[in-house]
Amino acid sequence: MIKVGIVGGTGYTGVELLRLLAAHPQVQLVAITSRSEAGMPVADMFPNLRGHIDLAFSEPDPAVLGACDLVFFATPNGTAMKMVPELVNKGVRVIDLAADFRLRDTAEWQQWYGMPHACEAILAKAVYGLPEVNRNTIKTAQVVANPGCYPTAVQLGFLPLIENKLIDVSHLIADAKSGVSGAGRKAEVHTLLCEASENFKAYGVKGHRHWPEIRQGLRLAAGQEIGLTFVPHLTPMIRGIHATLYAPLIHKDKAADLQQIYENRYRNEPFVDVMPAGSLPETRSVRGANVCRIAVHVPPTGNTVVVLSVIDNLVKGAAGQAVQNMNIMFGWDETLGLQQIGLVP
Amino acid sequence: MIKVGIVGGTGYTGVELLRLLAAHPQVQLVAITSRSEAGMPVADMFPNLRGHIDLAFSEPDPAVLGACDLVFFATPNGTAMKMVPELVNKGVRVIDLAADFRLRDTAEWQQWYGMPHACEAILAKAVYGLPEVNRNTIKTAQVVANPGCYPTAVQLGFLPLIENKLIDVSHLIADAKSGVSGAGRKAEVHTLLCEASENFKAYGVKGHRHWPEIRQGLRLAAGQEIGLTFVPHLTPMIRGIHATLYAPLIHKDKAADLQQIYENRYRNEPFVDVMPAGSLPETRSVRGANVCRIAVHVPPTGNTVVVLSVIDNLVKGAAGQAVQNMNIMFGWDETLGLQQIGLVP
Amino acid sequence: MIKVGIVGGTGYTGVELLRLLAAHPQVQLVAITSRSEAGMPVADMFPNLRGHIDLAFSEPDPAVLGACDLVFFATPNGTAMKMVPELVNKGVRVIDLAADFRLRDTAEWQQWYGMPHACEAILAKAVYGLPEVNRNTIKTAQVVANPGCYPTAVQLGFLPLIENKLIDVSHLIADAKSGVSGAGRKAEVHTLLCEASENFKAYGVKGHRHWPEIRQGLRLAAGQEIGLTFVPHLTPMIRGIHATLYAPLIHKDKAADLQQIYENRYRNEPFVDVMPAGSLPETRSVRGANVCRIAVHVPPTGNTVVVLSVIDNLVKGAAGQAVQNMNIMFGWDETLGLQQIGLVP
Amino acid sequence: MIKVGIVGGTGYTGVELLRLLAAHPQVQLVAITSRSEAGMPVADMFPNLRGHIDLAFSEPDPAVLGACDLVFFATPNGTAMKMVPELVNKGVRVIDLAADFRLRDTAEWQQWYGMPHACEAILAKAVYGLPEVNRNTIKTAQVVANPGCYPTAVQLGFLPLIENKLIDVSHLIADAKSGVSGAGRKAEVHTLLCEASENFKAYGVKGHRHWPEIRQGLRLAAGQEIGLTFVPHLTPMIRGIHATLYAPLIHKDKAADLQQIYENRYRNEPFVDVMPAGSLPETRSVRGANVCRIAVHVPPTGNTVVVLSVIDNLVKGAAGQAVQNMNIMFGWDETLGLQQIGLVP
Repeated sequence: MIKVGIVGGTGYTGVELLRLLAAHPQVQLVAITSRSEAGMPVADMFPNLRGHIDLAFSEPDPAVLGACDLVFFATPNGTAMKMVPELVNKGVRVIDLAADFRLRDTAEWQQWYGMPHACEAILAKAVYGLPEVNRNTIKTAQVVANPGCYPTAVQLGFLPLIENKLIDVSHLIADAKSGVSGAGRKAEVHTLLCEASENFKAYGVKGHRHWPEIRQGLRLAAGQEIGLTFVPHLTPMIRGIHATLYAPLIHKDKAADLQQIYENRYRNEPFVDVMPAGSLPETRSVRGANVCRIAVHVPPTGNTVVVLSVIDNLVKGAAGQAVQNMNIMFGWDETLGLQQIGLVP
Repeated sequence: MIKVGIVGGTGYTGVELLRLLAAHPQVQLVAITSRSEAGMPVADMFPNLRGHIDLAFSEPDPAVLGACDLVFFATPNGTAMKMVPELVNKGVRVIDLAADFRLRDTAEWQQWYGMPHACEAILAKAVYGLPEVNRNTIKTAQVVANPGCYPTAVQLGFLPLIENKLIDVSHLIADAKSGVSGAGRKAEVHTLLCEASENFKAYGVKGHRHWPEIRQGLRLAAGQEIGLTFVPHLTPMIRGIHATLYAPLIHKDKAADLQQIYENRYRNEPFVDVMPAGSLPETRSVRGANVCRIAVHVPPTGNTVVVLSVIDNLVKGAAGQAVQNMNIMFGWDETLGLQQIGLVP
Repeated sequence: MIKVGIVGGTGYTGVELLRLLAAHPQVQLVAITSRSEAGMPVADMFPNLRGHIDLAFSEPDPAVLGACDLVFFATPNGTAMKMVPELVNKGVRVIDLAADFRLRDTAEWQQWYGMPHACEAILAKAVYGLPEVNRNTIKTAQVVANPGCYPTAVQLGFLPLIENKLIDVSHLIADAKSGVSGAGRKAEVHTLLCEASENFKAYGVKGHRHWPEIRQGLRLAAGQEIGLTFVPHLTPMIRGIHATLYAPLIHKDKAADLQQIYENRYRNEPFVDVMPAGSLPETRSVRGANVCRIAVHVPPTGNTVVVLSVIDNLVKGAAGQAVQNMNIMFGWDETLGLQQIGLVP
Repeated sequence: MIKVGIVGGTGYTGVELLRLLAAHPQVQLVAITSRSEAGMPVADMFPNLRGHIDLAFSEPDPAVLGACDLVFFATPNGTAMKMVPELVNKGVRVIDLAADFRLRDTAEWQQWYGMPHACEAILAKAVYGLPEVNRNTIKTAQVVANPGCYPTAVQLGFLPLIENKLIDVSHLIADAKSGVSGAGRKAEVHTLLCEASENFKAYGVKGHRHWPEIRQGLRLAAGQEIGLTFVPHLTPMIRGIHATLYAPLIHKDKAADLQQIYENRYRNEPFVDVMPAGSLPETRSVRGANVCRIAVHVPPTGNTVVVLSVIDNLVKGAAGQAVQNMNIMFGWDETLGLQQIGLVP
């Protein structure tokens, strides 16, 4: 049983983290902070938590957070990097669900996030929390950068192809579709029901903050620079990401081996499910569940491999992956508190 | 640990029951029958169950079902009443999620369901499985009739008013709205996405099978005949029932006591949540959770009480209530395996 | 051909008015004002209007508006009443789609809208623009108060019963369900897709601004005070209102005449469609169309009449009704420019 | 004024065609056939048409259809090719909204549609009804094959790039997303609201009937074989197709010219709207409207061009394009009866 604090619990990532932590047998939740809602019982804002979470939102208190074993940041980008140094000094471990520790290159971070990085020293030691790549370094990390939602779906989908040098990495295409919860719980016109439902559109074609994050991960896997075209789309549903990935297949005769290669790569991964050959994963199959379901195809033309990768952006793409990282950091069974089954229908 | 069978597992009630039973610590699932899908792995039909349910659908086998401690029927109306007698003879306990054992009056049953009742003797001993009313008789029942979805939301909403004789029971109005999953997983035009989404309509105004069931329950509570107008509506979402209940208030001076009366009535109920005065329960707050959330209001006109009652039709309105009944029947903690938190957003 | 201006064209009522006016053969649109968006081409904000509306939003200019034959106000409540006097002085006719001229009683207006009324003299001469009630006075009105969306659906549904003294007007119930566009195009959390979709809830149970408006209209029709319980609900779709109306039937033997009474009442109304006996009107049948579809039922209990009334809240509940009023005011065929067919599916 | 018949009017393409033809000033609708619904008033099945279409469905009658100037087929694939020869002999002109006359190669047709072609002679003379390519031959065609929905969006998006030899046509990718109405009005489980809403999935990855149709068109434009990977997806909304197209850019220095090239290509097209540089077309902007909106982008990586192309699958992707073809065939203004503005919100 560890003491856990959450900084910034009023967004969708926050309420999802609360749903998962409320059911986790090793977690004692001691604080959920929100400057704007301090004093309000959490269950007043999120009535689904009535009877499960008795805490009220509180002002962030360094003493309370400093006494935690682990603090999750579910804050806007740029917040964690200012508060983490003090916590790290006190020996608190941190999982940041925002982007502050995701990009290794601070110049790139500044370019995409519009502000200088505030704690490069800690960034240098932070671990990118994609367990399927960095499980061993996550175990001992003091600060874990929880990956973005698109980067999780896209990297898990491309990794077996890149690691096995099966594709031309200069022409990778990631056509990704996200439910609206990926935009967060902010009062904005473009995500109103009347704007976003019964509608489909691309966005961020000129550049999206998850592009450098994906590129960083795939470049590491490839051991060389890669060329990635990433087009995210807003799809009229609440949860779910569907990444459709395309790459030129270098050796057409390898097409028949792809299924086996994917199954081998993820055989021991508790939260990556390589579906049988010919499958078409549906986002709803992972709704509320910490799973990435993947299928690999080579359509009739034969020169292009297509990978379909689905996650729940709030679970394997955010809060669930954060809990998975916590389980790894504290040496527990990686699936502890993460056995929820996708809600269908 | 008991042996459990499910007859008819291919509908929405079936998959929801599987989701709940897969996580129940006292249940060993031994058979899920479906004549049409026999041989197909359950997880092929419902990929959300991959890794959680290894069984395949099978032909109903009297020997296998007869060796169970408990059999759930998630079949179309009229199926259970033909198979239950043999199971009862073998000492198997039964929870029927269809309507076969809900109405006490077989003439009324025949009128609404269009066929004669096949086992009146067992019907006479069956218990109506609304725990908030019949908990004690459920404990020892061999056959439990799991209530309908609308009847659960409407009865729980009206009961405190009727039991305390606060309203004119000759003019009860239940305006109920259901998500589309209440219509089941059947290939029909009217529940296609293109017919049912971005649309709202009433149905069953001339008569709905849940009307006699609700009337039966409220009549018992009132100790007299009641007059109920019940109008169900189809609302463009998957899960959830919102019942808006209206009744003439007999004593206007009792308006101030209503909140307390509701809280007293359900104080010890683990799955009925009377919300604070002035609350407006949302169906999503119970999505995937075995909870009925209720609020009671007296609008400005003052002569009418309004009760808002929400459930997830597939959980407290079907599979969750069935598991709750199982817990009661087998003497376990009533909340065992039913602590899921509503999925928001 | 008349010159028309629109004050406040950036909301859903505004864009719908533009859609209808762009196709109206007698209208020359000369100005669409918006202080916040002045200078932006209308079609940049609403790309569906590309090729149909060439105007840009402009600052409200008294000279331009004063030169119009007709000005529509699609502004927040409280705006029109400040600008209308000057226009009226210049002889401009006005249709206000907001609430400024709907309530006859300024004390009541102040109570519900939280500000004193700014032009009582004009209010006294304004006409409530429900053509099915006030067609003759609309013809010559200088200022028309376009009715609210709920009030349109509820009044058209109740009127034949009240005018024919068939019901007990002390116990009227209007259970109304609205699509989310009724809440307008404002950046707010509660109408985000992730809050409002896959969810159903009541709101305004303690009091809603449309309650006094409905009560005013029904009281006039009844010639006596009435008792109305009005519960609006938010339903997860964009457009459409479904009002389910309940009232105690005074003479049960009149049940058989109700269909005829409704058909007689609305026989000559171009935009009220009394459906055949037993019908269940769907909101989508009026999507984008200026129609109110109504069905009248007496369910089995027999003591209560149920009326189902559907409109598109943005058309017959707002912009379409405003164009209908314009047609009446200027002596054109009432259906001019309003022959759009509901968009199904 | 011409006499028009519709064979097969009970699907979504049928009701959309009725909506458009009811408002067309040159069309007299004389018959709408449906074997299964013969005798039922059309407006009973589609209440949105009440007051606009007085016809009832009828058995197909060769005499009645043979007396028409034009017959639309909105039937399942394989029906038109059996009935068209007799009509052609009588001099009736035909627009087939199904696939019977789309593929030039009957062997390919048989491979994808699973039956031999029934009238090769007529197929040889039929014209593929994409006005932006074949306007001149459509004018005099006796039989027009109305293009599929995906093929319309994908071809219009790729054509300027291919015609100007700007891309490597061996690696074309069309990632297309369709609303559910594309699947038709058939009682099937996979398009139920509870299956298709709140869900996103790919389908047809191994091969889709629109793939050979798109390939045929692009091959003609390219004057050489092309390599096309086509992945359609089902998106949880009713109407709309969003095609995201990718191709390797041959000359990077041409990136700056793309906007101009697209504008030039479609300058005189009444129903193709090339949006300003940087735009992100939304499917809702064309809901109910006969428009294809297109934007062209070169994302930062620089080696890949991305085209975004949206249509309403039932309008420019089916019924609207059919009316456009009719206008061309009969020498009327191409926009006659097709000026509907997209319904937003």
